[in-house]
Amino acid sequence: MTAAERTPGAEPARRRRGRRPGGADTRDALLTAARTEFAERGFDGATVRVIADRAGVDPAMVNHWFGGKEALFMAALDLPIDPSTLVAEVVPGDPDRLGERIVERFLTIWDHTGGGRRLAALVRSVASHETAAAMMRQMISRILVRRVVASVAPDRLELRATLVGSQLVGLGMVRYVLRLEPLASADHRTIVAAMAPTLQRYLTGPLD
Amino acid sequence: MTAAERTPGAEPARRRRGRRPGGADTRDALLTAARTEFAERGFDGATVRVIADRAGVDPAMVNHWFGGKEALFMAALDLPIDPSTLVAEVVPGDPDRLGERIVERFLTIWDHTGGGRRLAALVRSVASHETAAAMMRQMISRILVRRVVASVAPDRLELRATLVGSQLVGLGMVRYVLRLEPLASADHRTIVAAMAPTLQRYLTGPLD
Repeated sequence: MTAAERTPGAEPARRRRGRRPGGADTRDALLTAARTEFAERGFDGATVRVIADRAGVDPAMVNHWFGGKEALFMAALDLPIDPSTLVAEVVPGDPDRLGERIVERFLTIWDHTGGGRRLAALVRSVASHETAAAMMRQMISRILVRRVVASVAPDRLELRATLVGSQLVGLGMVRYVLRLEPLASADHRTIVAAMAPTLQRYLTGPLD
Repeated sequence: MTAAERTPGAEPARRRRGRRPGGADTRDALLTAARTEFAERGFDGATVRVIADRAGVDPAMVNHWFGGKEALFMAALDLPIDPSTLVAEVVPGDPDRLGERIVERFLTIWDHTGGGRRLAALVRSVASHETAAAMMRQMISRILVRRVVASVAPDRLELRATLVGSQLVGLGMVRYVLRLEPLASADHRTIVAAMAPTLQRYLTGPLD
């Protein structure tokens, strides 16, 4: 993801000039180092220490600026929500309605964070830079497979997760990037009614 | 869609220099004019005459280089298959298996035309340029809604078409651009078994 592709509001200190130890440049350096490390080693393989070394700053700066490795990962991908928060919001509840909760949260998050522009930037990054694609793969593998799908799926976790991912990515593309009507303006109830059964079958139904 | 984003093989005459009436520059000029006209006026509103005027060439050149308006449209979007051919291939047959035929053809087409690179270029274009997004909307509206979905859908054609489109776009993104395993390497039978019921419900099933 290039700097130009991130949203202006995400990093207010961007315009400052000159290197400032512990300042905005430290934050940028950590983001750059994190993107490289997460892409090369994956979330589990990357360490806060190596990322800080690569950025030339003290490892404590990761906690200072981001609060931890997972939040750094989220910031590096410019996602609008902390993955842990997302998991805590959708997983609890009736397993047979997990598909419904996922669609509803997906729409709420992107509708309320300037979905179109931000998602288009993310899509451009993923389609242009192997680093961004590798990070997105990590995020889906780590969050969607291990913590969401694993909470309900009877088998074939990875296939189920990529099927769920494909429908969510497609919904994002069509609603926010292509803006195809009527899906672009449809209310949440209409989309949840149409798509929740798809996600639920991908999560817990038969796939053959 | 910028020139740099199209595949190198698509327009072999690109590197020639100097304007040649009726030559490769004419073809490029027609593609450029077509992208603007289709985006501004839609497929139905755009005419071969106006596109040729805008390109500064004789309207007969459209037939000479592309064979007609629909093929020009396909070339302008850099799609790997003529929409009419696609419709003729998937629509005939059991209406209850249309979802299956669509997934199968989608996979066959993109697997055999260097899916990843070409689709990534298309995705970058759509996420970066309103012209490309507008053309893609036209294509989906004209081909998917009027000629594929309309052949089987009981009602709500536009919503059904955008739902089908969302799952196909998502499949393309996950399999060819993000390359998420196991969907990236899964055989057609596995993907068709998992996704055909989704598309079939979007086409002919209840949406509430």
